[in-house]
Amino acid sequence: MKSVKIENLDWVSYRELTEKGRCKIILPVGAIEQHGPHMSLNPDVLIPSHIAVKVAERCDNMLVAPAISYGYKSQVKSGGGNFFPGTTCVSGSSLESYVFDVLQAYVNHGNREFILINGHFENSMYLCEAADKLVKKCKNEGVNVKVYLLSYWDFISEETIEKVFPDGFSGWAVEHGGVLETSIMLKLHPELVDMSKAVDVEPATFPPYDVFPPDPSWVAASGTLSSPLPATAEKGEIILDECISGIASHFG
Amino acid sequence: MKSVKIENLDWVSYRELTEKGRCKIILPVGAIEQHGPHMSLNPDVLIPSHIAVKVAERCDNMLVAPAISYGYKSQVKSGGGNFFPGTTCVSGSSLESYVFDVLQAYVNHGNREFILINGHFENSMYLCEAADKLVKKCKNEGVNVKVYLLSYWDFISEETIEKVFPDGFSGWAVEHGGVLETSIMLKLHPELVDMSKAVDVEPATFPPYDVFPPDPSWVAASGTLSSPLPATAEKGEIILDECISGIASHFG
Amino acid sequence: MKSVKIENLDWVSYRELTEKGRCKIILPVGAIEQHGPHMSLNPDVLIPSHIAVKVAERCDNMLVAPAISYGYKSQVKSGGGNFFPGTTCVSGSSLESYVFDVLQAYVNHGNREFILINGHFENSMYLCEAADKLVKKCKNEGVNVKVYLLSYWDFISEETIEKVFPDGFSGWAVEHGGVLETSIMLKLHPELVDMSKAVDVEPATFPPYDVFPPDPSWVAASGTLSSPLPATAEKGEIILDECISGIASHFG
Amino acid sequence: MKSVKIENLDWVSYRELTEKGRCKIILPVGAIEQHGPHMSLNPDVLIPSHIAVKVAERCDNMLVAPAISYGYKSQVKSGGGNFFPGTTCVSGSSLESYVFDVLQAYVNHGNREFILINGHFENSMYLCEAADKLVKKCKNEGVNVKVYLLSYWDFISEETIEKVFPDGFSGWAVEHGGVLETSIMLKLHPELVDMSKAVDVEPATFPPYDVFPPDPSWVAASGTLSSPLPATAEKGEIILDECISGIASHFG
Amino acid sequence: MKSVKIENLDWVSYRELTEKGRCKIILPVGAIEQHGPHMSLNPDVLIPSHIAVKVAERCDNMLVAPAISYGYKSQVKSGGGNFFPGTTCVSGSSLESYVFDVLQAYVNHGNREFILINGHFENSMYLCEAADKLVKKCKNEGVNVKVYLLSYWDFISEETIEKVFPDGFSGWAVEHGGVLETSIMLKLHPELVDMSKAVDVEPATFPPYDVFPPDPSWVAASGTLSSPLPATAEKGEIILDECISGIASHFG
Amino acid sequence: MKSVKIENLDWVSYRELTEKGRCKIILPVGAIEQHGPHMSLNPDVLIPSHIAVKVAERCDNMLVAPAISYGYKSQVKSGGGNFFPGTTCVSGSSLESYVFDVLQAYVNHGNREFILINGHFENSMYLCEAADKLVKKCKNEGVNVKVYLLSYWDFISEETIEKVFPDGFSGWAVEHGGVLETSIMLKLHPELVDMSKAVDVEPATFPPYDVFPPDPSWVAASGTLSSPLPATAEKGEIILDECISGIASHFG
Repeated sequence: MKSVKIENLDWVSYRELTEKGRCKIILPVGAIEQHGPHMSLNPDVLIPSHIAVKVAERCDNMLVAPAISYGYKSQVKSGGGNFFPGTTCVSGSSLESYVFDVLQAYVNHGNREFILINGHFENSMYLCEAADKLVKKCKNEGVNVKVYLLSYWDFISEETIEKVFPDGFSGWAVEHGGVLETSIMLKLHPELVDMSKAVDVEPATFPPYDVFPPDPSWVAASGTLSSPLPATAEKGEIILDECISGIASHFG
Repeated sequence: MKSVKIENLDWVSYRELTEKGRCKIILPVGAIEQHGPHMSLNPDVLIPSHIAVKVAERCDNMLVAPAISYGYKSQVKSGGGNFFPGTTCVSGSSLESYVFDVLQAYVNHGNREFILINGHFENSMYLCEAADKLVKKCKNEGVNVKVYLLSYWDFISEETIEKVFPDGFSGWAVEHGGVLETSIMLKLHPELVDMSKAVDVEPATFPPYDVFPPDPSWVAASGTLSSPLPATAEKGEIILDECISGIASHFG
Repeated sequence: MKSVKIENLDWVSYRELTEKGRCKIILPVGAIEQHGPHMSLNPDVLIPSHIAVKVAERCDNMLVAPAISYGYKSQVKSGGGNFFPGTTCVSGSSLESYVFDVLQAYVNHGNREFILINGHFENSMYLCEAADKLVKKCKNEGVNVKVYLLSYWDFISEETIEKVFPDGFSGWAVEHGGVLETSIMLKLHPELVDMSKAVDVEPATFPPYDVFPPDPSWVAASGTLSSPLPATAEKGEIILDECISGIASHFG
Repeated sequence: MKSVKIENLDWVSYRELTEKGRCKIILPVGAIEQHGPHMSLNPDVLIPSHIAVKVAERCDNMLVAPAISYGYKSQVKSGGGNFFPGTTCVSGSSLESYVFDVLQAYVNHGNREFILINGHFENSMYLCEAADKLVKKCKNEGVNVKVYLLSYWDFISEETIEKVFPDGFSGWAVEHGGVLETSIMLKLHPELVDMSKAVDVEPATFPPYDVFPPDPSWVAASGTLSSPLPATAEKGEIILDECISGIASHFG
Repeated sequence: MKSVKIENLDWVSYRELTEKGRCKIILPVGAIEQHGPHMSLNPDVLIPSHIAVKVAERCDNMLVAPAISYGYKSQVKSGGGNFFPGTTCVSGSSLESYVFDVLQAYVNHGNREFILINGHFENSMYLCEAADKLVKKCKNEGVNVKVYLLSYWDFISEETIEKVFPDGFSGWAVEHGGVLETSIMLKLHPELVDMSKAVDVEPATFPPYDVFPPDPSWVAASGTLSSPLPATAEKGEIILDECISGIASHFG
Repeated sequence: MKSVKIENLDWVSYRELTEKGRCKIILPVGAIEQHGPHMSLNPDVLIPSHIAVKVAERCDNMLVAPAISYGYKSQVKSGGGNFFPGTTCVSGSSLESYVFDVLQAYVNHGNREFILINGHFENSMYLCEAADKLVKKCKNEGVNVKVYLLSYWDFISEETIEKVFPDGFSGWAVEHGGVLETSIMLKLHPELVDMSKAVDVEPATFPPYDVFPPDPSWVAASGTLSSPLPATAEKGEIILDECISGIASHFG
């Protein structure tokens, strides 16, 4: 069988492809999280998974591992908050342990380089911890492992931001369920977006602190932190192209 | 949006469907594990996921959660062993915590009944522990939760076994990568099976104990515990039909 | 002092006996669990402990470690369920950690081979995890450790089953508190069995799934999964003899 | 069946005896630890177990749970140190979790009062933590649990000390493997003591700090912290009598 | 005794001040981390501690808890990286557990509102997890707790940024050891700053990803992410004044 | 910068001072705990911190790490109990993990010898576990680490005891909040002691066991276990001098 997706390979093919640690393993990590009434719960999984496959198809010697679907708890200022029905998140320690173990298993097969493509902001610090612990443990056992950790939106240039947000960009922080993700989903999975249900909201503004338990009144009732209305599949395509080629050229 | 898959719903639709805890949530749990040179690494994920969707489509008020892809370590006598390249498994505590947290998140949305459809034998005791701890914790907090835990092959009848194994059945224990799973995959995902690579092996026999580290010589070089050669898509269809209708009638 | 039981040795004798890792250490692992109104709560501890001593007495260079008395939670289909008064079980992670630490301590003394004799089905996967983690940790530290894991009933032959169950065998799964364990206890500890209280029950049948919280109505009120009435000390002797000689010949 | 030992009861008898939480459950906690070349490794288990049974036999409504055999790591100044062959100890977290789970299981049966009889000094703080966590967790769940924690030697009076140590008492701290434990073992288990191997040592003196890794030269080669030579079964009887009656009168 | 610092109070005074949960407890959380050759390792502790005291002195009913000194691992892009000598950091799980327990202890005294003032960016997500878990656990026990979490620099206004960075502001991300922290330290602890050792560096620029193990060549040899040269005590005073009055007015 | 306190050093100075592991790192560990109505909550932190600095100033090649302020739960018989307002303690596992991580970080800088100066009796066993685990882990990684663990009062001689307690010494066990700590605080921090609020109490006597939940009636209402009235700054000076010179001469 031929595929850049590990799960679609038989083990003999996988062994050949990964021999001598020559493959970089891409692990998409996302979340099941509300993204407004106009969009499904899985953009944080689908987008990094798509990018991972496209990057691997462009580069030699990259394979894509099955994604981690459930991510760390949604926070009010970046994802609307963990109290929305449908936002289905795990604790930091569970995410960290699960990702650690998955990476360790791939190391056991002889792989030595990993690219974590993150699609959910809140995961970052726990992925960082999993990567740090793995690398140190392996080093203590005489194995040199390298883990790259990236969030796909960090590969978007100023030029693209200007194109995608011609009326001004309010910052990644409020892009949850807004133009960025909606545009990409319109391009990739139009069947999972219903623009007729998209709600126009002002870019969210927040007090300079967080509060627990979170205060639902800080977030628009729709759950997005900015308006998805200007989203288009064309914008999605531009963004994806840049992320895919950026990541491919950095790690290819 | 309309789907039995939770991830494909927007949060408002999800909220409506799950109101008053009226939905049972099905969580497929599998593994990424070698299944012989003739088959991809993901049957333990794809099969329970397919069954889950079909059961949910037949029953009112069931939804399917995104599957848990990485499961507990493959054991020699049931899955060939954790040393095969491609077999990518996590520790028991990581699986238990991750599943616990996922179920807790669905409880937080108001759901009260869960069906864990397991596709990987080795997961069972850790799912059992996650379910037990969740149910007790919720009860202590005044919330009554019910978790059903099943492995799909336990819904296969003697009659079907006779049809599928006309030359005699060696027991579920050695069905890893054999007729059962290969037939179902031929039915569901023929593109992930290449029967030209299938290796004929005698049903595995093992000493009456386990040993750690595992001894690779206990397992056929191909990784399956019995021969996949007699597998056919027709057999797969029979098995699936029975599992789906059995599960649907028990829990519908 | 002279004994195959480690606890009865003074440390100097123990050091001599275990020098150069030449002893295999047997660790019996059991449970405190109801076994019907006719029998004490400790067969799962006493039986593997007895077998361990007898095996060690037959073989050179084996020693028996103090047993682990409290095991993993009794499950309805194999042990009647964790809700019976007297069934006193621990979580999987506690059992795993405790056994791991005990084995590690014996490794620290220079021992390299271990035989875990399990007397309680539900322990298996957690013992498996403890053994796997120990072996890997030691290997990373340059120490090769081998752990054998067995449940004593897996050493019983078809011939013996026919002798012990002349009217047909319903499978190990329902032997909880039935002929197997009652016969052995009648042989070893008749003072802990009161056949006048033994309750005749049909071999248990169960739905093809588990449920949490468990449903007590699935189990006979007496707590056994099959009838202990045909049990005799003679049958117990036959079973024990076979288990002891089987284990001794495999590992001696 | 009739016994103060829980493990020897059938579950129906246990249920009757413990109804309405009317029984105090005694849990002996010990260690497998060297006690000099003249004595077995198990005095820390056997002594509190014996005391527990005798106390329970004197009092109404007390039952003895199976002992915890493996305790926290032996420390140089109280047990000679964890580096002696035969000293087989677990980590603090494993001991704490295991004891916590055992107590929780007894609480689940309806028991509400516990007496932990400790036979190994080093266990104390971890038992304390287990007890504290259990009591708080239960209280949060609306269940009032009471745990008494004692080390048996704290019930020995000045008068007895004078009788047992007519030439002066060097303090409990150095009684490891000395007159106290040897005398009791001579009374209870003379077959596990061989006074011909007893080594005369001065009461240990130590620097006012601990060091890790421990320095074996701090301890006498024999492993005891004072001389067992003056030990006699008569002294053992006096000590036991006082401990048993003291504990019985406090908690009976 | 009279003080806004809890540690300086006797327990009777503390009890009176905190009666009926009327006090907000401020917990400063920092790190021991290199901040360039011109500055001590403790600005992340000293700054939030100072702000906490000043805020508490301005507001009624606020008390300052002893600070958490050791924080989560320094990251290359925000703190230079965890490989610098002197950067002394703990794992995420240790920080989370320690902070959780500290907050729980204050809740046990009857306190209900907390303000975590963070001085080390990398701590944020672990403080967030500790706060989230505490609030949920308490709620399940019938206690309503509120935790505010803030990083002091989020209270600095655009106007102040313009004053402090007249030649342009490169963003908080590269302020590690730069004008912000150096100015504050010059104001608060001039004895811990030696401007003669301050190294002029360009604001750091980084690739759009992280890598483990970190690559020291990404960071200036001095360890700061921007130049501390323009720092002055006057700027420090302006910043502190704004942070203190901002926090005081939000929570007073 | 010049200081024996690590936190006051810049990283370059710290690197020079600790080169080749030539420095011993002193880590003071204390607690926030009531010490009677006449004294602040922090003697267990301030006293070992002061001793640490003085010892380091006397010896070459010693540095003092920032103290661990929050310690293990106060016990009735040694600290009055964990139920006093102001007594702010953490669990054993949190303390152990936090200290372990801090020591590991210093090991990562190249340090190899540590002196833990404990100011709170209840911390001992958890510090012991942290030290033991660190030393073993490092050894497995090829790094030899040495950890000394001491409680400062163990350096006080019989002579000093006679001077400080001319009317008889009731043992360290009841010195909580009594003459020992009050005298030292009068010497070091007279502003944190108010002798007008000191309460005269008899030396505490306790039953020979502990109980959970603790019984507040076992402790004097003031919270101290003996009377602080005879405390004087002069006595504090004598004690401090002896501890400082004793520790310095042992480890210098």
